[in-house]
Amino acid sequence: MDRYLVISSDTHAGPPSEAYRDYVDPQYREAFDEDLATKLALRSIILEAASEEQEKFREEWEEETGDGGKLASYDPTVRDAELDKEGIAGEVIFPDADVLGGGASAPFSAGLQSSGELDGELVMAGARAHNRWLAELCSASPERRCGVATVPILHDIDGAVAEMQRVAAAGLRSMMIPTLWGDKPAYHDPMYEPIWSAAEDLDLVVNVHSGGSSKDILPGPGMVPIYATEAWWWAARPLWVLLWSGAFDRHPGLRLAVTEDGAWWLPDIVERMDEKWVGGHNTRKFGNLFRESIERKPSEYLGTNVFLGASTPSRYEISTRGRAGVRTLLWGNDFPHPEGTWPHTRESIHDVFHDVPTDEAAQILGLTAAEVYRFDVDKLASTVDRIGPTHEEVHG
Amino acid sequence: MDRYLVISSDTHAGPPSEAYRDYVDPQYREAFDEDLATKLALRSIILEAASEEQEKFREEWEEETGDGGKLASYDPTVRDAELDKEGIAGEVIFPDADVLGGGASAPFSAGLQSSGELDGELVMAGARAHNRWLAELCSASPERRCGVATVPILHDIDGAVAEMQRVAAAGLRSMMIPTLWGDKPAYHDPMYEPIWSAAEDLDLVVNVHSGGSSKDILPGPGMVPIYATEAWWWAARPLWVLLWSGAFDRHPGLRLAVTEDGAWWLPDIVERMDEKWVGGHNTRKFGNLFRESIERKPSEYLGTNVFLGASTPSRYEISTRGRAGVRTLLWGNDFPHPEGTWPHTRESIHDVFHDVPTDEAAQILGLTAAEVYRFDVDKLASTVDRIGPTHEEVHG
Repeated sequence: MDRYLVISSDTHAGPPSEAYRDYVDPQYREAFDEDLATKLALRSIILEAASEEQEKFREEWEEETGDGGKLASYDPTVRDAELDKEGIAGEVIFPDADVLGGGASAPFSAGLQSSGELDGELVMAGARAHNRWLAELCSASPERRCGVATVPILHDIDGAVAEMQRVAAAGLRSMMIPTLWGDKPAYHDPMYEPIWSAAEDLDLVVNVHSGGSSKDILPGPGMVPIYATEAWWWAARPLWVLLWSGAFDRHPGLRLAVTEDGAWWLPDIVERMDEKWVGGHNTRKFGNLFRESIERKPSEYLGTNVFLGASTPSRYEISTRGRAGVRTLLWGNDFPHPEGTWPHTRESIHDVFHDVPTDEAAQILGLTAAEVYRFDVDKLASTVDRIGPTHEEVHG
Repeated sequence: MDRYLVISSDTHAGPPSEAYRDYVDPQYREAFDEDLATKLALRSIILEAASEEQEKFREEWEEETGDGGKLASYDPTVRDAELDKEGIAGEVIFPDADVLGGGASAPFSAGLQSSGELDGELVMAGARAHNRWLAELCSASPERRCGVATVPILHDIDGAVAEMQRVAAAGLRSMMIPTLWGDKPAYHDPMYEPIWSAAEDLDLVVNVHSGGSSKDILPGPGMVPIYATEAWWWAARPLWVLLWSGAFDRHPGLRLAVTEDGAWWLPDIVERMDEKWVGGHNTRKFGNLFRESIERKPSEYLGTNVFLGASTPSRYEISTRGRAGVRTLLWGNDFPHPEGTWPHTRESIHDVFHDVPTDEAAQILGLTAAEVYRFDVDKLASTVDRIGPTHEEVHG
């Protein structure tokens, strides 16, 4: 019976926020307690401010999933059981399992909210704590997990490189950098060269993950809808900043994945970049600036250096695979976040992939993620044989 | 013989920078002289830094067009002759005709570079100067021209409203606001309410025009390609910020046009906004926030409140007209900028529109612009009869 190897390129894990205390370096525990108190207070405010509809959704969600994914966020046995039900053999694990303000996020905002405005010393302490916890989680069923270390690279390059060496030695194969640089230099700045060198040397996939947003949309009418409309862009931006900076020419082994950020925008943007690189009447005033910046046409970096962790892709997004490149898109389910497909991932895969040729579906559902994030496919074979979605289930 | 009414929703005009002196309020003339000296020095630097390819392009461009459009930028007779050759009956005129650093831009960066970081008093003085000059230009062949006043609304709301009243009284029918707010509040902030009220009351179309960009991409590898890749986004952003703020519900007569910013991105972004407004599993955690923000589905504001000045659209962009809405797209040629289609606009219109149904082509090429920017179509009839592209010319 033919089964798909399914790897979710986007899951989240973390213990209840208070449990990070033991993982924080002792000299930061007092600051940790203060940060935690602020976080818990904020959590109460969020819960109290929930509208009737939000409250109703929480209740339905927790009833449907048992506990809203709280236990599966950190207990490897419970987690594996949920992955099994979903047909998922392997997972690429980001921080901040925090579900509906439920309180599981990395200390000192070192997770998805990591940005240039934070205190560099504290956010690095928070990152170290999360990365230690994550390495432990990944030591259970290690063949199924690729933990994404969080590395706040904006504040202290040497410190960041040291943490990259540590997480690589601890067996983690990917790292997440802040989506927004805030008031720090953007990623085309030569100051980040040691980071890209180390990522290439240590074979760490560099990730950005959506969630952060510019601070210039202050509270006011429409704030949340505005945030939700433009969140994709802030996570997409590092792609063209790094690409045009020539980082992938200087570091051919450097790989960047943009995760949980949609896939609908990629072909259009990269095709516009290609047009500029190829050149035409409307770019002549720039001279050869585009060609001089990078060696290949921008789209030629897709699938070799640039990947898209396309969480819960729509049929429309998968239909653009020919433009984005079949080997550029990595399926994901955002487990256990409530905007993902859990606990209905099998149905969702059927809906989206039922008429996609099996070789292309296999690539997007798992084979590319296995290559990029270095999963051992042989070691996953028995899991796939046991729980992988069958071709019949997906296409029948 | 059937001819199209063609209105370019995107042209640029301005005298040589030094000629603005007489239009600047006397108390700012000393500051004007300093600003001009800086500008001319920068111009020399730009010209000297031009690469061989850029120099070659300038020579070819000036040979092909006579003088690169310098005289047509401010002399109404020369300008009308060029419009005639291009088949263009009417034009919507933005500032900064400045071609290849040639030195025709509004004082104190009051034109396309107007943003939150500038000195509020000076940029407003520069705006007043340009608007005075523009009203004079528009008094020649007034039926053919809609001047877009530049109004820096970020610094002094009362002063901006006063300038809006002045330009409306001077016969201008549109105004341009800064594309980027910089360190000032974004356009969802209630502080801008008097601006939207005045725009509605005075029947001034609010425009944003591409060209500005965030200051966070500092000089470094790939800077210009990065700028060119993301410039569209900065000009598109005011659209969803204003829309989600409910401004078009509070001011049903308010109209926003996003100009020279491509059209390829609009359907995807607005369809994502629609999905959120309609609601589904992946937005339930937000409750009713989207529906509570605005009365209609985002796409329903297109063609009534929101328009796209789609300069030099590609065939692909025009092919998306069903998704963007035929009444949303306004053709333009960016005259006399070298990235536009001048002096080959007639050929370009043929290339892009040859297989577009005549009623849709007529709408996009001119009828919608005539409605939105209030051109008197009857007064333009004799010009169209004389120079408008024939259906045979466009579709033959």
